[in-house]
Amino acid sequence: MKITVQRDKLSNAVSHVSKAVSSRTTIPILTGIKIKADEEGLTLTASDSDVSIEVQIPLEEADEWGVTVHQAGNIVLPARIFSEIVRKLPSNEIHIEADERLVTSIRSGQAEFSINGMDANEYPQLPHLEEEKVFSIPGDLLKTMIRQTVFGVSTSEMRPILTGLMWSLEQGKLRFVATDSHRLASRTAMVECPEELSFHNVVVPGKSCNELVKILDEDQSPADIVVTDNQILVKSKHILFYSRLLEGTYPDTTRIIPQGSKTEITVNTKEFLQSIERASLLSREGKSNVVKMVTLPDGNVEITSNAPEIGKVTDVLQPKAMEGEELKISFNAKYMIDALRAIDSSEIKASFNGPMSPFVLRPTDHDWMLHLILPVRTY
Amino acid sequence: MKITVQRDKLSNAVSHVSKAVSSRTTIPILTGIKIKADEEGLTLTASDSDVSIEVQIPLEEADEWGVTVHQAGNIVLPARIFSEIVRKLPSNEIHIEADERLVTSIRSGQAEFSINGMDANEYPQLPHLEEEKVFSIPGDLLKTMIRQTVFGVSTSEMRPILTGLMWSLEQGKLRFVATDSHRLASRTAMVECPEELSFHNVVVPGKSCNELVKILDEDQSPADIVVTDNQILVKSKHILFYSRLLEGTYPDTTRIIPQGSKTEITVNTKEFLQSIERASLLSREGKSNVVKMVTLPDGNVEITSNAPEIGKVTDVLQPKAMEGEELKISFNAKYMIDALRAIDSSEIKASFNGPMSPFVLRPTDHDWMLHLILPVRTY
Repeated sequence: MKITVQRDKLSNAVSHVSKAVSSRTTIPILTGIKIKADEEGLTLTASDSDVSIEVQIPLEEADEWGVTVHQAGNIVLPARIFSEIVRKLPSNEIHIEADERLVTSIRSGQAEFSINGMDANEYPQLPHLEEEKVFSIPGDLLKTMIRQTVFGVSTSEMRPILTGLMWSLEQGKLRFVATDSHRLASRTAMVECPEELSFHNVVVPGKSCNELVKILDEDQSPADIVVTDNQILVKSKHILFYSRLLEGTYPDTTRIIPQGSKTEITVNTKEFLQSIERASLLSREGKSNVVKMVTLPDGNVEITSNAPEIGKVTDVLQPKAMEGEELKISFNAKYMIDALRAIDSSEIKASFNGPMSPFVLRPTDHDWMLHLILPVRTY
Repeated sequence: MKITVQRDKLSNAVSHVSKAVSSRTTIPILTGIKIKADEEGLTLTASDSDVSIEVQIPLEEADEWGVTVHQAGNIVLPARIFSEIVRKLPSNEIHIEADERLVTSIRSGQAEFSINGMDANEYPQLPHLEEEKVFSIPGDLLKTMIRQTVFGVSTSEMRPILTGLMWSLEQGKLRFVATDSHRLASRTAMVECPEELSFHNVVVPGKSCNELVKILDEDQSPADIVVTDNQILVKSKHILFYSRLLEGTYPDTTRIIPQGSKTEITVNTKEFLQSIERASLLSREGKSNVVKMVTLPDGNVEITSNAPEIGKVTDVLQPKAMEGEELKISFNAKYMIDALRAIDSSEIKASFNGPMSPFVLRPTDHDWMLHLILPVRTY
């Protein structure tokens, strides 16, 4: 292999694929980045078996030079040191040449590195996905949808299926659901897809979703998504992101969302959030992180918490509207803060069914999002 | 104690003094911040026995309201929770009231905290310093001088005196010296002081110096410095910073700085730094972090390093000037990088006395700074 490549493009590609490099060294070749040069350009690949990322650098793009391939071929280079070298090289052009002993010369300006590579034939093949179930979504929307739900996945391996984000698609409506069985986050959006395309129970590991968020750009350029039985592939510009899916059946969460409500409180999202954050300064000193909320006869809402030894806090919130029964309820402050931070609408409606039943938070300006939280029994 | 205080001023003061709060809880009262209200305003104090910081909030300053003291008094509040509360309070005015049982109410807007305080009479007294040896230096210069030397203090407790930065003053010339016996950093500057004022062997713990850097503003407002036998006090605006001094005699470092030189190389600081940084990508994989430097017959300088298993690197540097004998020398890349990063001049002169002797780096545009490094014997 012998190539000349533009430094910033290589540096970007390396930093993208590096996110998939395994930190464990049980499979030594996966601590490397695979570099393949052919007539189309350069392809970099990294994988930790769960997530694989592939980035292409075309020969030319929008009249801008990317790479010149003097001799096709491939090599695997140690990821950490290669990525540091690329970042520190002095000139805009980088010459990379691998010989038959796998020794790889990396030249730029007056600097020359000589690095021992690994055999690319030993690098595992990425899955070849049949492109049957394909749909498309703006990259920034996909990013937002993940951010607004993924915090709700379980971190416990007791029920592994709950450590994933459940994706489903029906009649053009994409839905993400996360739950750790104490709270649930759901977000839907309309996407571009063939009319008959639908799937359920596609459970993407939470960790993969978090990596995907880092890779996607903050713009509307489309991400094309391919779903198979055990893999998902997200294609955005020159980046291919593969993740394995979790095996098992995701629980049916539709039935736990209460339909009616006994008390409804409409409140400014930010004021509510700040009030809970203040209360949590004390509640989190205790193990259960419990905050209490009580409706007052004057139409206000009182939020309190206390920490033995340290002290207590009382906050009074003026809701926009309140309907139904009076309410005394306790909940985990962290779940409430996570949900309120994920809501980008300025106003929410909270619907309660008494102190023992799950309650629901919804933005008042759209129906695409829902957060459900189980109360803590203190009353 | 009963006061009303402006939130941002209190928040700033708390964040400054918090830097001195002890994380160890061997002396429980030092996990708190002492708050004293009197006719002059509010004084906040925190201390970890080595470093103490005091910040004053005057009643009024430049026509801007700071604090109103309704009833003088004092209290000690738990530092971490108090600082978090202050940051999260909703309104510009904060009411603080401590009762005789030390229970302290903190009110702002609709939020009210009630926190258990500690008895301020149990808080240790800060040393009272005789203001005999006082000099003055612009705050940003003091900050720069510390940053350009403090990295050189020893981190080993083998010779505790070397873990400090040595301050001396003679004929208006303030000098900072740091050494860990493998390298030395020195920085001098002229300061405003009484003609007869001089001191030596004032050794300020490196950790204290690093804290002091965080406290000082990036402007020329003067820092007044009081030096006593076992304490140093730095006063800047409303902040008083106390540090204990290290006991013992700092070694005489003047004699180890070589006078003549056999090889002199003048080079662009940034190019030299980047070249060493590239070489260190490989050298630091080894234990000794050694980089080799060799003068070439064509007047250039070759910098090389290698890491067994991984590979090697060669870099060629074009110096501005080179005089004297040819040179082959090896040194620790970290020491060189630390020194070059501390030099804010665009060009340096490096003076060598053969491969076994310490060498010196100096900016070419002024005489206020010097870095000395001991080579590693590989040739």
